[in-house]
Amino acid sequence: MTRDTKRRIQLSHGGGGVEMNQLIRKLFFKYFSNEILIRDEDAARLEISGPLAFTTDSFTVSPRTFKGGDLGKIAVAGTVNDLAMAGAIPQYLSCGFIIEEGLAFSELEQLVQSMAAELEKSGALIVCGDTKVVPKGTADGIFINTSGVGQCIAAPSWTKLEPGDCVLVSRDVGRHGACILASREGLALQGDLASDCATLWPDVKRLLDAGIDIKAMRDATRGGLSAVLNEWAASRELGIEVQQQQVPIAQEVQGLCELFGFEPMELANEGTFVLAVSADQAEQAQALLQQSQPSAAIIGTVVDAHVGKVVLTTPWGSQRYLELPKGELLPRIC
Amino acid sequence: MTRDTKRRIQLSHGGGGVEMNQLIRKLFFKYFSNEILIRDEDAARLEISGPLAFTTDSFTVSPRTFKGGDLGKIAVAGTVNDLAMAGAIPQYLSCGFIIEEGLAFSELEQLVQSMAAELEKSGALIVCGDTKVVPKGTADGIFINTSGVGQCIAAPSWTKLEPGDCVLVSRDVGRHGACILASREGLALQGDLASDCATLWPDVKRLLDAGIDIKAMRDATRGGLSAVLNEWAASRELGIEVQQQQVPIAQEVQGLCELFGFEPMELANEGTFVLAVSADQAEQAQALLQQSQPSAAIIGTVVDAHVGKVVLTTPWGSQRYLELPKGELLPRIC
Repeated sequence: MTRDTKRRIQLSHGGGGVEMNQLIRKLFFKYFSNEILIRDEDAARLEISGPLAFTTDSFTVSPRTFKGGDLGKIAVAGTVNDLAMAGAIPQYLSCGFIIEEGLAFSELEQLVQSMAAELEKSGALIVCGDTKVVPKGTADGIFINTSGVGQCIAAPSWTKLEPGDCVLVSRDVGRHGACILASREGLALQGDLASDCATLWPDVKRLLDAGIDIKAMRDATRGGLSAVLNEWAASRELGIEVQQQQVPIAQEVQGLCELFGFEPMELANEGTFVLAVSADQAEQAQALLQQSQPSAAIIGTVVDAHVGKVVLTTPWGSQRYLELPKGELLPRIC
Repeated sequence: MTRDTKRRIQLSHGGGGVEMNQLIRKLFFKYFSNEILIRDEDAARLEISGPLAFTTDSFTVSPRTFKGGDLGKIAVAGTVNDLAMAGAIPQYLSCGFIIEEGLAFSELEQLVQSMAAELEKSGALIVCGDTKVVPKGTADGIFINTSGVGQCIAAPSWTKLEPGDCVLVSRDVGRHGACILASREGLALQGDLASDCATLWPDVKRLLDAGIDIKAMRDATRGGLSAVLNEWAASRELGIEVQQQQVPIAQEVQGLCELFGFEPMELANEGTFVLAVSADQAEQAQALLQQSQPSAAIIGTVVDAHVGKVVLTTPWGSQRYLELPKGELLPRIC
């Protein structure tokens, strides 16, 4: 084996034989090590009781490294966040790699390290995995799927939304989308336009521990804030009124959106969530969220009117619908 | 929208907006419909109690349709089988699609139909999913990840292997690998060389219902029978003796292996499993397996000797090691 073949992923690393075993033991077990994983059975055996949340996401983000994160970080945070949004403790994750032949081993190791570091933010464990290697040209570098299970300790659901509830965002919106856009355009931006990519469980836990009754909660990923609000309004057959000037948007994000003609509320986030609580808990929830993100804000209200619609009140008092995004302006955002 | 764009997957089908919602509702909810899935939350909420098995697999098989199955069938059967091998009821599956822009909608629908048909064999439900669409040229058609959870009703594990245990295979080996090889080589083979791709839960359930104490069990996927036996021998630090003439191999598989220089015991299977039981239950187990596959056979014994090795006794009485496969002769086998 030459030095070069040692340092790149080969088809044999996905072949089910000697080389795959080495990859699993020397790389994945090294960084993800935990008692369940190293038992090395076809399936992990979990001692856990219901109700459980179960979720899956595949990650294909391009570029794979961006300011504030990388594919590994997003792959862990994304699934941990889906569990957190379901009111579940992020306990156990699976990890499925689809790797293009020829990927530098050092890049894979970097991504795996990044995953391991992000797991520590919530305490979740990777307990089972799968590795496929596909021939050069049949995938772009590496795709990662993570699925997750965890015990539910709350039951937020859009079905609980009621007129009068307040809608909050956990921080300023649109950072991840803007950051990826800037990376692709090769923009050397002033300021600090990093992705919001982050594990949200500590914030959710803080709210739950304080006794906040979270009625509905969702992270504003693809389709952004706009998609979450529209889906809630349509599913629950209620309206949602949003005060545009209350929606926190960083200046760099706003600037980039003006330059490229994007709507910040449609841009993807990877560490920002939307929640609804009853009016009497809204300020407390905001204050709790502001402990980690000072930009957290109460942005609107659930109403009886405009059934199925999200209505934006502009700073000038005029109103317009905020529509569910259409088309695809930023593929491979996550 | 022209007729043609209607019929192919667009980047917008993975964008988190209108088009993705339509794809989810009109295709995935249509075929996978169940109460949990259509609640349409970020994560499925399951009422289930431990111990649970949790497993994941990504599927990249090429060609996507082969004699005896397709990517959809293998994606469901593969994960259902990993649960079954863990002694778990295959209850809940997740499904993550990574689709290349431009995939024919009709092919996606065919794969989804195939998945739905295979789910019926075990009663498993797809309860959550994710769809990513990547630009043309960055993936080859479609990759599917499925993860699964289910309640364990038995606890097979290689840790339970003891000298004297009998080793069985549930049917003749090497069919899937041989079938994919034949498809790629464009061979018009005589006979009926179909993949063994199948859901194994009914066979496992029949064994458990009859009171068979399955000590260890694993489906012989990548690396084939050889990989399973070698991993067991190495992990448990015992030897395994196999009588070569007892290992069932179909004539078409044997013929193809001779033509291409493959070892049938290293070829992947997708509906064939290896199990170990105590000697006094071996014949009963074989008889139960033969109810669905007449070729099921007792092929060997766990022994104290040759620690960590698998020893094959040839029909002429000589012995050789059966090694853990090396390299990769058939990429994208599953």
